[in-house]
Amino acid sequence: MTTETIDGVAVTTRANVYFDGKCVSHGITFPDGTKKSVGVILPASLTFSTGAPEIMECVAGACDYKLAGSDAWVRSEAGQKFSVPGNSKFEIRVADAYHYICHFG
Amino acid sequence: MTTETIDGVAVTTRANVYFDGKCVSHGITFPDGTKKSVGVILPASLTFSTGAPEIMECVAGACDYKLAGSDAWVRSEAGQKFSVPGNSKFEIRVADAYHYICHFG
Repeated sequence: MTTETIDGVAVTTRANVYFDGKCVSHGITFPDGTKKSVGVILPASLTFSTGAPEIMECVAGACDYKLAGSDAWVRSEAGQKFSVPGNSKFEIRVADAYHYICHFG
Repeated sequence: MTTETIDGVAVTTRANVYFDGKCVSHGITFPDGTKKSVGVILPASLTFSTGAPEIMECVAGACDYKLAGSDAWVRSEAGQKFSVPGNSKFEIRVADAYHYICHFG
């Protein structure tokens, strides 16, 4: 079951562009002030750093990820989530496209 | 005056990826059913085709565009808009990034 739309939010019109456009997201804010982002990672092997803890929810496509301190690459596909601790890192490999919702905290 | 956020909308979580990621957008739907998109064009020279008429509103960055049937390249920067007829085309050149809202109809 994937989350196809998120209702009743404010969207930030300016995109977040990371890694020369290999990752593009738009921020969304809920009425209670909660912030998330919706984005896509294009074919690439990237390393992301976290500030707050994050939950990455795949809404389409797929990726393989590896958390800091782990040697295991794990597949994540549409409808699946993975958690990343705060002040940490994760590696991600995308062959086609990985569409996601990033939940913070 | 740029439109920094758009309130009270539903955002489609899966991104639209065009031209190998040189253009990435997310669709938004207003409570009355009106659809728009928020997106970014990265450094590229692209030609877009329209179905419905479009108004392109720049919210950050800049582009140069040329409408079908015109020889004139025109600059569009943050806070500025340009209109494209339906069933037409326009060329766009972006040197850095062009963040936009696309209004249809």
